[in-house]
Amino acid sequence: MEARIPKKTLADGLSILERIIPSRSSNPILTYLPITLGQGSLILRGTNGEVDLEVRLSAETHGEGQVLIPAQPFFQIVRSTPGELIELIFAEQMQLISGSYRTQLQTTNPDGYPELSFRQPAGEKLPAARLAQAMTRVRYAASTEEYRAIFRGVQLELSPGNLRAVASDGYRLARYDLPVSSDSTRKLVIPARSADEIIRIFKDVQGDVSIEVGEGTLTLVGDAVRMAVKLMEGEFPDYARVIPQSFVLEATLQADALRESLKRVAVLSDRNNHRVDLIFSGDKLEINSEGDYGRGREEIAVEAKGEPQLVVAYNAQYLIDALGPIEGGVKLSLSGPTSPSLVQAVEDSGYLSVVVPLRV
Amino acid sequence: MEARIPKKTLADGLSILERIIPSRSSNPILTYLPITLGQGSLILRGTNGEVDLEVRLSAETHGEGQVLIPAQPFFQIVRSTPGELIELIFAEQMQLISGSYRTQLQTTNPDGYPELSFRQPAGEKLPAARLAQAMTRVRYAASTEEYRAIFRGVQLELSPGNLRAVASDGYRLARYDLPVSSDSTRKLVIPARSADEIIRIFKDVQGDVSIEVGEGTLTLVGDAVRMAVKLMEGEFPDYARVIPQSFVLEATLQADALRESLKRVAVLSDRNNHRVDLIFSGDKLEINSEGDYGRGREEIAVEAKGEPQLVVAYNAQYLIDALGPIEGGVKLSLSGPTSPSLVQAVEDSGYLSVVVPLRV
Repeated sequence: MEARIPKKTLADGLSILERIIPSRSSNPILTYLPITLGQGSLILRGTNGEVDLEVRLSAETHGEGQVLIPAQPFFQIVRSTPGELIELIFAEQMQLISGSYRTQLQTTNPDGYPELSFRQPAGEKLPAARLAQAMTRVRYAASTEEYRAIFRGVQLELSPGNLRAVASDGYRLARYDLPVSSDSTRKLVIPARSADEIIRIFKDVQGDVSIEVGEGTLTLVGDAVRMAVKLMEGEFPDYARVIPQSFVLEATLQADALRESLKRVAVLSDRNNHRVDLIFSGDKLEINSEGDYGRGREEIAVEAKGEPQLVVAYNAQYLIDALGPIEGGVKLSLSGPTSPSLVQAVEDSGYLSVVVPLRV
Repeated sequence: MEARIPKKTLADGLSILERIIPSRSSNPILTYLPITLGQGSLILRGTNGEVDLEVRLSAETHGEGQVLIPAQPFFQIVRSTPGELIELIFAEQMQLISGSYRTQLQTTNPDGYPELSFRQPAGEKLPAARLAQAMTRVRYAASTEEYRAIFRGVQLELSPGNLRAVASDGYRLARYDLPVSSDSTRKLVIPARSADEIIRIFKDVQGDVSIEVGEGTLTLVGDAVRMAVKLMEGEFPDYARVIPQSFVLEATLQADALRESLKRVAVLSDRNNHRVDLIFSGDKLEINSEGDYGRGREEIAVEAKGEPQLVVAYNAQYLIDALGPIEGGVKLSLSGPTSPSLVQAVEDSGYLSVVVPLRV
């Protein structure tokens, strides 16, 4: 059983798996890498218990079969090999040859390795990079608290023609809508960390990914990658009611300028609630903070309509996060000093964020 | 009391101090930054108890005096200011104005700030960048163990015409000689962490640094920076006896090639002692390792004279470290499998490293 594969192909494949395969585990077999030799392909797998992953690489092969090898040393060795081609010879041990370097890695019987939970897709597809994009834009708003565990996930909502990603921690909410050609209707909640892996793996993938849901698992199948992600049970409570519909003031300005001002002023904000006061006054926005070390203040120009004067206090970090996905202009729609505010991208109607002001 | 200073000048000055001033301290006044306004200059100071530092910046000033301001928020604010010029106005608070941004920082009475231990140089000088260079080359060999505390420092030895830096942990030694025009004779041991600060601050400084030793302190005075470093008590035991004088084999090869091979082969070495076996055989050098996960092996070409065959075992990390300062060729001079080996740079006669082989 032998395989020859370009170093770059193998290293790229392993880099996809490297974050998933644990370097330590209470179940030590998970620290191993199952390698399967098929006809013209090398199949690598891994799981961290939450995310199962399989990468299929083209290779020149002789023979078929499966072995387990220790994953971490293999990652390190492949990265550092001197040759452009890597030769793997499977016998009692696995021999790796690359240029003047050769090594023998212990192999282990693959029988004890857990079965991964990939499901066969039935035909439903989504554009891979756009799926990752939608999740990226809302990911920041997911909760890190134990309380209301469902908010530690990112909710995907499919409806005919639309894919929506939503995340919230109860104090803020981010929502991203993306037109897709899918016609199914369903809601899934993906743990935020697994969402990070989906983003990482599919963000640069061209074309579609097939998806399949069942037995609490979302399976994603791309050209070279299969992924199965454990889903969270339940779904988000109805969040539509926190999205304000009427506003007393709408202000437009450059997202970058606002973000940089907020960062500067927030340096001196209270270290517990990062409070900044936004004082809208005609076509000026003044941002103020006050904390143990002193006070910060900056003024920027806005285009505003509505109330001539309005003061609203926010957690600066929440506003900065909400501006994160926005390039170009941002529209702030305020419903008052104590009701939720909308943060929207002028040039991307798919994005919407809700930030609840601080109680003064 | 006012000052105007380009943002870049101030930010560069603060970046020198930033690593020294603690963000937390059992003596909270050390987390403050003393600012002194002089005629045409802004003087900033800081200390971590081991290293005292003073940076003098050119500025447009009105009035003279000294205040203490909280250092960490000031670092953050200066980095993020929008304008190219920063204006500081000292009153009850310190007002900072830059472009559209303005802030007021609390100030504190400077009376409680400890006196820093700079001494007036008497005229002794060293080339700043070369001093830093000599210390950089040997720094890796300093000990991190509590045992024999003196080895946690870098020893500087001045003798007429020569500056020598030495570090050792008992298992390896690095020595760097640099011709200088100084004619004094003395030995100093600088704590390794303080040596890191000297390297950081003086490595890019053109020209000389004046030095002065007294009361357990080394003072270094450059154009814009004064630094006082607490010295360690005592000096290194006589290390000349561990430097071998006669050899059974000398081998020359490219340092880079050897370093890369060692890194690859060491991946599979024993995780406790990182053992690699170097098998010299004519004009070939074979490097072998064996550990829990398997075996690594690589062969590289050498120019060798002496014994036709020799096997020596090393801690791979020690060899890799010893090769660190070497560009181009390396000469390995072996005195046998159980006696110390020399690692020297073919193109830099100032550098010498001693590595003790592992007992097989």
